[in-house]
Amino acid sequence: MNIRTEIIAVGSELLLGQIVNSNAQFLSQELAELGLSVYYHTVVGDNPSRLESAINNAKERSNVIIFTGGLGPTKDDLTKETISKVLGRELTFDVEALESIERYFTQTKRIMSENNKKQALVIDGSYILKNDYGMAPGMAVDIDGMIYMLLPGPPSEMKPMFENYGREYFQTKLGFQDKIISRVLRYFGIGESQLETDIQDIIDGQTNPTIAPLAADGEVTLRLTAKHKDEHIAQKLLNETEKRINDRVGEFFYGYEQTTLVHELNKLLMKKGKTISAAESLTGGMFSEYITSLDGASQIFKGSIVSYTNEVKEQILKVQKRTLEQFGAVSEECAREMAEQIRKLSKSDIGISFTGAAGPQPHEGQPVGTVFIAISMGDQNSNVFKLNLAGSRKGIRVRSVKYGCHYLVKLLNEIE
Amino acid sequence: MNIRTEIIAVGSELLLGQIVNSNAQFLSQELAELGLSVYYHTVVGDNPSRLESAINNAKERSNVIIFTGGLGPTKDDLTKETISKVLGRELTFDVEALESIERYFTQTKRIMSENNKKQALVIDGSYILKNDYGMAPGMAVDIDGMIYMLLPGPPSEMKPMFENYGREYFQTKLGFQDKIISRVLRYFGIGESQLETDIQDIIDGQTNPTIAPLAADGEVTLRLTAKHKDEHIAQKLLNETEKRINDRVGEFFYGYEQTTLVHELNKLLMKKGKTISAAESLTGGMFSEYITSLDGASQIFKGSIVSYTNEVKEQILKVQKRTLEQFGAVSEECAREMAEQIRKLSKSDIGISFTGAAGPQPHEGQPVGTVFIAISMGDQNSNVFKLNLAGSRKGIRVRSVKYGCHYLVKLLNEIE
Repeated sequence: MNIRTEIIAVGSELLLGQIVNSNAQFLSQELAELGLSVYYHTVVGDNPSRLESAINNAKERSNVIIFTGGLGPTKDDLTKETISKVLGRELTFDVEALESIERYFTQTKRIMSENNKKQALVIDGSYILKNDYGMAPGMAVDIDGMIYMLLPGPPSEMKPMFENYGREYFQTKLGFQDKIISRVLRYFGIGESQLETDIQDIIDGQTNPTIAPLAADGEVTLRLTAKHKDEHIAQKLLNETEKRINDRVGEFFYGYEQTTLVHELNKLLMKKGKTISAAESLTGGMFSEYITSLDGASQIFKGSIVSYTNEVKEQILKVQKRTLEQFGAVSEECAREMAEQIRKLSKSDIGISFTGAAGPQPHEGQPVGTVFIAISMGDQNSNVFKLNLAGSRKGIRVRSVKYGCHYLVKLLNEIE
Repeated sequence: MNIRTEIIAVGSELLLGQIVNSNAQFLSQELAELGLSVYYHTVVGDNPSRLESAINNAKERSNVIIFTGGLGPTKDDLTKETISKVLGRELTFDVEALESIERYFTQTKRIMSENNKKQALVIDGSYILKNDYGMAPGMAVDIDGMIYMLLPGPPSEMKPMFENYGREYFQTKLGFQDKIISRVLRYFGIGESQLETDIQDIIDGQTNPTIAPLAADGEVTLRLTAKHKDEHIAQKLLNETEKRINDRVGEFFYGYEQTTLVHELNKLLMKKGKTISAAESLTGGMFSEYITSLDGASQIFKGSIVSYTNEVKEQILKVQKRTLEQFGAVSEECAREMAEQIRKLSKSDIGISFTGAAGPQPHEGQPVGTVFIAISMGDQNSNVFKLNLAGSRKGIRVRSVKYGCHYLVKLLNEIE
């Protein structure tokens, strides 16, 4: 069966440009992974006659139509009503959905107005897709071999509904025996083209799992997607491919899925029971801001000195005047002293420092992108790393912080 | 004439979910401002027969069709060719466009391959829209009262092309004599619903300029859009409405267009020749990071102490042990001492401090969202502000920093 899918988003706010159609992007990715071809996206306003004509158009050219939006309680929400009319199928109350809506109001201690009941109306004969993050349920119905799926508009409701129920509906409906499992591997410290070159033969020779690289914000991710009717075997296929890849580029691998370098650093500091403080020049507090963005940061982070001027480096951080005069603020020596000083002043196990030229102008004669990162861990000698980064002021600052986390993770993994 | 506009994006990468259709959002906003109604968005892949059917569909229901994408040099780029076929209009070489493409290669010192010439082909009789940021020109053509506009896919080329040439084409073509001028007013410290309530009668009674409120990240913006054939009068209409609005809510107004609170603070510190330093607890370095994100920050920002633990507050920031014991770290007294200490230690004109409970747990018995911000400006008494913020950990931190900038701007505006 040749499946031709169309995604119809319903909502005047899209046609006014108030929001972007991110739902269509999300669903397109999901459907591509399921192996369903998407041929059209359509956006239509909250207007019954134009929606009707969009549905009739879609019926001519597609055999799976996925709608987003227009399932809410207001009179503008008319997706179900219009589809019901076009298909000649009644709307009926779904008891479970109605109970769930009533429960939602009880839990959030609000009064339920009558129009909310409208959200429990479903197209007769449809399979209900539960809404775990809102009130309006979704639904899917097969009429004469055409599949219609209705999903809510807010991405926070639509995405989990599709992931948890919509995807499975299609797999069952279309008789896909295979479970589809994805795993995202995250890398830092290696460029996208280098990583691709290093594993090109694996990517090329590989169909299950497939391997899709993506670069963003100085990081590279690989998305592995395996299909198999036995979920354990799909997992095993992922494990094997991950191992083959990381045998080559494992030194740059730092975590799975949506994790971040600073999150991995945080976990590792907790695990090792170590505390950290920072002395930041070019990064201006960004490392501290990142690490304190996580709950429970006070267990591992004591504080920092943002020494943006030499005066603060000398007078608060107590870097020796001689060091600044002899080597300059952007130097290995200054970085080392900054890291050691912050560790001592804050009585932390680890001190990390960042000094460099973020641009747009060179700093103390050092070209833009020159960055020194020092890590002081007590008895051992401090480690100092020099970077030559390219890009914007913001890009240089962000990547400096990420490199700092990357080096810390490496060093922490080496100690007891 | 009732204008029904449709935007057709051409590109398989959209149907695979690799990119989001931000072009449709941008154009929808622009067209709404021009007063053109958008009835449909369509996305179709790089497939001539499906594009052909999308064009035929659009011809039935719309009288302005704007295409994005498919104007490039590769064989996948087939928008012009398909439209040419559907409309029965030849493609001809545009001499100026060809010269411009050749110039582009000369300037970027690259060799021009033959297929690049294809980009200079235009639909016979069209008005050329210059591409100032790429090679493929856009075009617009009126055939039997239907307007077809073709724009490139990359937003970096499409947006300036529409802003600089496309908009004017429509204004001239549709006989709009009016210049359309927008102005964005930015507010902080007032909620969207409060601001709307305060000026509801102005919004309701107002058609030129129109007033559109929008809330995001704890800020509210008002977009005023005036139309008049005389640009000076349009500006005057904007000035008058701005004055009427700010007579009521001016205390919350902080700037125009894309500016930020920290940017306004930075400008003001430069203008007044003042330096600043910060003592940050709950914000963890975010204020420092924001202020150092701007070029030239070292002229006004000396540094900061991120005192995430009481130990650092005492030992580096030199807050008295007694203050912490008697009042706690989340207190007016502690905030005041933090601000005064950082000002003295860093020898800055101004010290600002942030202490509070960002969550998810209460801090020292203070409920999540309790925040104290103190500003010390030397001889004067310090100002301390108490906030009770709601929202996520991140939201509380971001809004604390914004409130800090907001208070600083107010205080700086009061001094010489």
